Amino acid sequence: MSLQMQYDPKNIFAKILSGEIPSAKVYEDARILSFMDAFPQSKGHTLVIPKVKACNLFDIAPDDLQNLIAHTQKIGRAVRDALAPDGIRLMQFNGEPAGQTVFHIHFHIMPVWADSPPRRHGSGEMADFNELNDLAAQIKAKL
Amino acid sequence: MSLQMQYDPKNIFAKILSGEIPSAKVYEDARILSFMDAFPQSKGHTLVIPKVKACNLFDIAPDDLQNLIAHTQKIGRAVRDALAPDGIRLMQFNGEPAGQTVFHIHFHIMPVWADSPPRRHGSGEMADFNELNDLAAQIKAKL
Repeated sequence: MSLQMQYDPKNIFAKILSGEIPSAKVYEDARILSFMDAFPQSKGHTLVIPKVKACNLFDIAPDDLQNLIAHTQKIGRAVRDALAPDGIRLMQFNGEPAGQTVFHIHFHIMPVWADSPPRRHGSGEMADFNELNDLAAQIKAKL
Repeated sequence: MSLQMQYDPKNIFAKILSGEIPSAKVYEDARILSFMDAFPQSKGHTLVIPKVKACNLFDIAPDDLQNLIAHTQKIGRAVRDALAPDGIRLMQFNGEPAGQTVFHIHFHIMPVWADSPPRRHGSGEMADFNELNDLAAQIKAKL
């Protein structure tokens, strides 16, 4: 039920894609946008989204999903090279009970440091936009 | 450092691939194996792995990764159709600090139920093999 839903063209990532809401951009091309999570669970928490109207894993075309993961790999490598975390988690949530808060499919690239466990999803504070832009620039430089 | 490592051909998933260790199989072809997590964090916790010697996101070839995510989508859909969870999480951990316990790249398909939060990764008990086989059969029937 929460896994089969109608795409809401007013969701926050749609507004980021349209430019209505600003984001700290890491990467953009005709099919992909990557930007810093505004409510980061850890330093360098980055999101990668496709430019298609898909809510989740179940309504995205396989080709778009494959393009999304290939870019997530490249950007994940840049996050690793820029910030040198101890580990990196990829996460993709489907449905509110699974932790999805924006219903436009996205992969989380979450750096993990051994000495500071990630904050809970949805519990974070909004980050300073200048700090996010600075992190985005560091990651972009490694792409 | 923990993100750049040598593939250990004796890791537990290599032994599952070789048949040395049994698994409750959901799907298998020339490039992919999917089976039930023996230490499930929730009912229906399923893993999808490629048949290549890759430790994590950073040493898998893009084509193998794209094939892996396409199968993860198909199998995720079958998990949804077989078990009807409230949500589904995809997770892929890189490095021990991020929660990776087996150093052969794998995607977790983790069903989530609103009324029973998932157990912590690595804290689960080993599941009954017959129960896992029964779940695998239910998922396989939806593929």
